[in-house]
Amino acid sequence: MRPPVPSDFSSPPSGRQLRAWDEADRAARPARQGRLRARLAAAGLDAYVGLRREEIRYLTGIALGEGEEKVAGHSGRFLVSADELVVLADSRYTIQAHREAPDARVVDVTYDLPAAWPSIVASLGARRVAVPAGDLPHALWEALRVAAPDVELVPAPAWIDEDRAVKEEAEIERIAAAAAVADRALAALLPEIRPGVTEAALAWRLEVLMREGGAESLAFDVAALAGSQAALPHGSPGQRRVRAGRVLLFDFGAQVAGYRSDMTRTLFVGAPTERDLAIYDLVARAQQASISMIEQAVASGGAIPSGRAVDAAARAVIEAAGHGAHFGHGTGHGIGLATHEQPSLSRAAGEGPLPSPTVFSVEPGVYLAGRTGVRIEDLVLFDVARGRVECLTRFPREPLVLPA
Amino acid sequence: MRPPVPSDFSSPPSGRQLRAWDEADRAARPARQGRLRARLAAAGLDAYVGLRREEIRYLTGIALGEGEEKVAGHSGRFLVSADELVVLADSRYTIQAHREAPDARVVDVTYDLPAAWPSIVASLGARRVAVPAGDLPHALWEALRVAAPDVELVPAPAWIDEDRAVKEEAEIERIAAAAAVADRALAALLPEIRPGVTEAALAWRLEVLMREGGAESLAFDVAALAGSQAALPHGSPGQRRVRAGRVLLFDFGAQVAGYRSDMTRTLFVGAPTERDLAIYDLVARAQQASISMIEQAVASGGAIPSGRAVDAAARAVIEAAGHGAHFGHGTGHGIGLATHEQPSLSRAAGEGPLPSPTVFSVEPGVYLAGRTGVRIEDLVLFDVARGRVECLTRFPREPLVLPA
Repeated sequence: MRPPVPSDFSSPPSGRQLRAWDEADRAARPARQGRLRARLAAAGLDAYVGLRREEIRYLTGIALGEGEEKVAGHSGRFLVSADELVVLADSRYTIQAHREAPDARVVDVTYDLPAAWPSIVASLGARRVAVPAGDLPHALWEALRVAAPDVELVPAPAWIDEDRAVKEEAEIERIAAAAAVADRALAALLPEIRPGVTEAALAWRLEVLMREGGAESLAFDVAALAGSQAALPHGSPGQRRVRAGRVLLFDFGAQVAGYRSDMTRTLFVGAPTERDLAIYDLVARAQQASISMIEQAVASGGAIPSGRAVDAAARAVIEAAGHGAHFGHGTGHGIGLATHEQPSLSRAAGEGPLPSPTVFSVEPGVYLAGRTGVRIEDLVLFDVARGRVECLTRFPREPLVLPA
Repeated sequence: MRPPVPSDFSSPPSGRQLRAWDEADRAARPARQGRLRARLAAAGLDAYVGLRREEIRYLTGIALGEGEEKVAGHSGRFLVSADELVVLADSRYTIQAHREAPDARVVDVTYDLPAAWPSIVASLGARRVAVPAGDLPHALWEALRVAAPDVELVPAPAWIDEDRAVKEEAEIERIAAAAAVADRALAALLPEIRPGVTEAALAWRLEVLMREGGAESLAFDVAALAGSQAALPHGSPGQRRVRAGRVLLFDFGAQVAGYRSDMTRTLFVGAPTERDLAIYDLVARAQQASISMIEQAVASGGAIPSGRAVDAAARAVIEAAGHGAHFGHGTGHGIGLATHEQPSLSRAAGEGPLPSPTVFSVEPGVYLAGRTGVRIEDLVLFDVARGRVECLTRFPREPLVLPA
């Protein structure tokens, strides 16, 4: 295969495009809040407490950086009731909160949410409040319960996760834009890959190419793993050097206007071994089995497969080749404001039909500890209503052999 | 003041130095675990459950990237009993866990800790288990309680936070090294600062200079805030441009061998206004008031001040100038494996004496919404036993006026 070049892929978004996406978010937010309010009403609940960075951005518009939740404390956390949106902030965040969430009532809770809790829930007239029990620390749950004993805290179902799994068009566009930034960056990196270069140097160069090529940040730390290191599904790049005849695995993604991409390519530097090439072929066939399953479902208008079924399709190919024990992780995950979100494609995933339209990764792998590893990961758009199954990752999947 | 140049500051650590720090960690880990075991014994508890990235690294040696906890699931989380260290992992992390924590028993919990919980606690003979209730989500707490109803879950005091606040020599060395990487990077950036450059471009260049100058990662996203944006204590850099006669605030830090730095400088591009210069002078005097308080405590051999008292010293200076309402955040925070850790220097901080030896930031600020903002932040080593109070941040604090 001819090595791809950056111009094979879409250019980074223009300022006009970025503003249009902002506008689309603003326009979509009332409907997002409306869906949540309908769920509250149906469940007989008065309010929902939002805690996570992704939910904050999705429902209020406040953009926190990755990990900023820790620093932000309660800032950005919010409550949605039947007719109000209340955003919590402390003095460091009130200006940002007013600017990014102009329709919200901003409440300065300093750093003490339990102290402010009784008056906040009273101001909303809330007696039964949905709280994501999987996110709120146990100690804070107990403190809120004690602070307002007449307010019932109800573990919230994963409503927002379900809602966010179904993507709006402007969300899909941003995931595709983030995928293109990653595609271009890897294409630009190819001429710099040669025996002797360290994993860490390549990981950094790939980051620079993304950050200077349209990414506002990374979706996650770049993994660049050479040779037997590629057998670590979550290894970190180090001072190991690229060697001829061995695999070189990159797992990376960009963030564009809040939305993320995630892709993996396993390259060969110099002629691959027969063993590595056979594993590559196996993983590629496993990936295609999952993609074919959803393509057929869309083409036939038949039943929508579950995340568990799509996982099983890839897994069956790898198990049939005797490598089932070398594929320990799931086949894929949804992506959007978070790198990992619903739907899940795994052995533990639900058996209900996949949401639509949605975007998820398809990323089987085979890992031989101490020897080699291959993973191929693409983002796939799945849109039943429009009959679309489309790889948003455009970097070719054929084995790519770089000069040694 | 003559603008500093990179060679004014220490060079990044050598590979030999990095290995020596690794070795120091290995040597220190039994004592760290021993302190925890003594606390468990004194409290009549059988085991401690560790959840946070910082604790995982401190007590087990497993190094997760920032935010990797989310992806890692239960991997890296651990239990310490009187005579065992158990590390949880799933298939993606078992190889890393065995390598980085060779003395631990690695238990593959797949993704289902509650299912594995009864056998794990039984294998340790644990009936009363300390769990950080401020970190464990409420739903998981409840699931563990139900999974092993005869095992009592006891909210754990902030033992590890207290232990980590007292720094080992090799920890202090790494914080100092991270501070020097940041110092050098800002010095190298100075010639690139001129009117018209955007905040985002300067933030990115500062990141590149740190990452290519010895930082393995950032301590947090760089803040580069021009003019009135500097009034946002946690603003993000954007497309606003540097303008002559306005302030330019950088808040940034590096990570070296797991340890972090944090510094803020507010620079002037072109001749400052009298207002901005007066605020700068006020903030510098406030910072010095806090530093002088701890210097005097060490010099006099008198009582060790509390974090609340050190905060009050800086705050009194700002309040006396009528700007108390414009200094909403705390004066400082400890730093180490995490950017923000114990001790806290704030109005809400404890009244007990500061730990020693320890490292914390001293970072008062004055923010005039819509107009301007000034913050000056240095890391200070406080070591009573050795009579040391030392600024680990070496970049000068005098007003620095760059050519417009």
